[in-house]
Amino acid sequence: MRGQAFDRPRFGRFRGRPVKLRDAIDQVVGRYPSRFAITVFLGLIVLFTVLFTLPISSRTREFTPLHDALFTAVSTICVTGLTTVDMSTHWSAFGNGLVFIGVNIGGVGVLTLASVLGLAISRRLGLRAKLIAASDTNPSRIHTGPVSERQAIKLGDVGGLLAAVAISAIVIEGITMLAILPSMLAAGYDFWHALWYSAYYAAMAFTNTGFSPNPEGLAPFETDYWMLTWLMIAVFLGGLGFPVIFALARGWRNPRRWGVHVKLTLTTTAVLLVFGMIMFLLLEYSNPKTYGSMGFGETTYQALFMSMMTRSGGFSTVNMHDLYGSSMLVSSMLMFIGGGSASTAGGIKVTTFAVLVLAAFAEARGAPAIEAFGRRIPADILRLAVAVVLWGATIVAGASIWILQLTKMPFEQVLFDVISAFATCGLSTGLTASLPPEGVYVMAVTMFLGRVGTVTFAAALASSQRRQLYKKPEERPIVG
Amino acid sequence: MRGQAFDRPRFGRFRGRPVKLRDAIDQVVGRYPSRFAITVFLGLIVLFTVLFTLPISSRTREFTPLHDALFTAVSTICVTGLTTVDMSTHWSAFGNGLVFIGVNIGGVGVLTLASVLGLAISRRLGLRAKLIAASDTNPSRIHTGPVSERQAIKLGDVGGLLAAVAISAIVIEGITMLAILPSMLAAGYDFWHALWYSAYYAAMAFTNTGFSPNPEGLAPFETDYWMLTWLMIAVFLGGLGFPVIFALARGWRNPRRWGVHVKLTLTTTAVLLVFGMIMFLLLEYSNPKTYGSMGFGETTYQALFMSMMTRSGGFSTVNMHDLYGSSMLVSSMLMFIGGGSASTAGGIKVTTFAVLVLAAFAEARGAPAIEAFGRRIPADILRLAVAVVLWGATIVAGASIWILQLTKMPFEQVLFDVISAFATCGLSTGLTASLPPEGVYVMAVTMFLGRVGTVTFAAALASSQRRQLYKKPEERPIVG
Ligand SMILES: [K+]
Ligand SMILES: [K+]
Repeated sequence: MRGQAFDRPRFGRFRGRPVKLRDAIDQVVGRYPSRFAITVFLGLIVLFTVLFTLPISSRTREFTPLHDALFTAVSTICVTGLTTVDMSTHWSAFGNGLVFIGVNIGGVGVLTLASVLGLAISRRLGLRAKLIAASDTNPSRIHTGPVSERQAIKLGDVGGLLAAVAISAIVIEGITMLAILPSMLAAGYDFWHALWYSAYYAAMAFTNTGFSPNPEGLAPFETDYWMLTWLMIAVFLGGLGFPVIFALARGWRNPRRWGVHVKLTLTTTAVLLVFGMIMFLLLEYSNPKTYGSMGFGETTYQALFMSMMTRSGGFSTVNMHDLYGSSMLVSSMLMFIGGGSASTAGGIKVTTFAVLVLAAFAEARGAPAIEAFGRRIPADILRLAVAVVLWGATIVAGASIWILQLTKMPFEQVLFDVISAFATCGLSTGLTASLPPEGVYVMAVTMFLGRVGTVTFAAALASSQRRQLYKKPEERPIVG
Repeated sequence: MRGQAFDRPRFGRFRGRPVKLRDAIDQVVGRYPSRFAITVFLGLIVLFTVLFTLPISSRTREFTPLHDALFTAVSTICVTGLTTVDMSTHWSAFGNGLVFIGVNIGGVGVLTLASVLGLAISRRLGLRAKLIAASDTNPSRIHTGPVSERQAIKLGDVGGLLAAVAISAIVIEGITMLAILPSMLAAGYDFWHALWYSAYYAAMAFTNTGFSPNPEGLAPFETDYWMLTWLMIAVFLGGLGFPVIFALARGWRNPRRWGVHVKLTLTTTAVLLVFGMIMFLLLEYSNPKTYGSMGFGETTYQALFMSMMTRSGGFSTVNMHDLYGSSMLVSSMLMFIGGGSASTAGGIKVTTFAVLVLAAFAEARGAPAIEAFGRRIPADILRLAVAVVLWGATIVAGASIWILQLTKMPFEQVLFDVISAFATCGLSTGLTASLPPEGVYVMAVTMFLGRVGTVTFAAALASSQRRQLYKKPEERPIVG
């Protein structure tokens, strides 16, 4: 503590305030960022589980069974969107309010805090410097050398970031809410219901959760392209991740000045989106239970919607149960990859996947280094990517084996729902809702490990890494 | 050509012989090792397809349909062991002879030739030096610096290696044949049938193919632990790979002097074997269709047998169709990993898997380098491993989607059989035998890409890699 005293004046706005408690917290967070993040997550889940169990939360004013309350709490805080109870009928106004607050805390607040914090602290980089580096529009980044220990993050710095994140969330959710309000009114809901449903859907879309507040779900809006398009936009933005959103907000006119992380996230997302759309179009156009009766234009749109929602939005206009096995496999693969780093989406993250593909191509070309957009990607990023994928594959395999043995349900449904849980996607073949309590707990753990794991795991791995001195210009996309 | 003339005297035994044709072949092979290997494979498959189609090959003296002949040719040359016709009844003595010769060429000859050749040439290492490095008992290896271009392989060198490989194959297959002959006689077959069956089973075990010559298959030997154990030993040795077999033959008394590749292959194989055994034991002990009626000892043995056969042996004592979905997933994972590099087994190879796991652990520990058994594993090996796994995953995903869409068969059966084909394992849920011709072709391509791909792909990748000068002691396990 004493050694740090000399640095304090650098943080001008704290001068003169009592700093001892702050320093103590800083030290805990700085030393164990992943433990801090996991503790916050666990604390929130316990709190929400208790609240969901209480009679005040259910519409019938009865206690909700523990496994359902826990599952809903995890699904809410981890913005998964899987359900074991009917979200539109089971909960009271209080319960619905909890869900609304929960997804915003889980999707926007905690995770960003935890992940950016973890990454920032672990690398001994200033948080602002880190964010600027990730969402880079500053050409000086290529001249950064080793960063001084003195730049170690202070908790107070997080306030500014969190405010920026909260503001962008409120702006995007607000615009989405206003945009879809007419659709709600057109569907015949009264004004206050329509307003609440709009706010709820907007939050569920931007946080990539995917719960529906109305008993009919998305069914009344199956051909409401205005509404569906706004859901897609919000899901898309939430799934990009805050570093990318900030970079776009700051310099969307100058694509050349975007950092590698931004370019890689956008390119990979676009490629996966088109790939998924084409696959669903090809595989499902003749399936009588899904797109069979639709024309080409409608099928294309619905395939795009489906492809977007596997990013981890979790909304659906068709029943996942009715998909052909081939489409289920494609969806499972897309869900496993998930969205952007430090986003409201889950999965191993698009940059992780991109780094693996780039590595394979570099290997095939015989290139000495992994390169993207004219920058060299350090080899240790590949190692981190491999670690994240192995972690994900292990969780998915373990949970699948367990659920398969427990339920003896069809393989594709188990794999689909487990990957959906791991990647916090929330699409379901209906398996999750029919699980026995033991299976519900397995799925809850899968959601937790999938959401908290990939992020804090990546941060923890990063934090335990020895510092490296970079002599050549290179950039570090965020993986995991 | 002229430039190489000065090196010729180095290869003493070729002195005085005409070397022009040899040089020309050397140059083609040296420049395009993977094309050479693929050409040899394709040539053999075309030859065997033509021969299998002919009336002389079938017992009924009728033409065999092209898709069945092609599939059997690919399954034979790629030592896969999947079938679309009944191997024990469809073929004539001539046809059976073709199968026997085909698996020995495919399992022992071509592949080893192609892979070792490809790797050896590509790295501009002498073949002998390469083999010694891989199966190392020579402590001087850690002092090797960059290898001179002059050590570029000559085709003539391959003769000696091929002889060593052939001898070890003949010795292991011969011993196995003699060992299981009593079992065949005890099962009631007459002497000549028993002899032929023994030779056939020995070849099918060591080459990790898995065809059965007798109409009953392994059923009469389900509790013949002598016979099953010998099959396991032969499958185990074939699946280790020749570099490991040679290292063990040369220095099995001095485990400390084994190279990293040998240690890594043996350790990973052992871990996967025990893991598979425990999983099959836990998941299947109560399955009435598989191990349900067996005692603990028998279940354990059968679980071990099953675990060993997923390495890519392809023999089975239970019907894969009757496994629980959970065990099918475990089998699929084990099959995907497969056996040792430059072996008769398939899959992505155990060392590839080990390198990925080691990388993840190194990442978690924050270690600066991937290490195994006190040696540093270069980062480019990780990149190669990632490329091989992505290649495998892409083939498996593509073939699965195609077969799923084509047949609408249950997901777990499709995934199981496709992975079995990719990893040339040969275990089947029965799906392959029921495929329409179009599906048969997809599976044939999968087998070809799985067998030829991972090996020559790895070689091709390696060959296109720029040369690196290593300044520090390090070792290169063979991956892919
Ligand atoms: K979700
Ligand atoms: K096989």
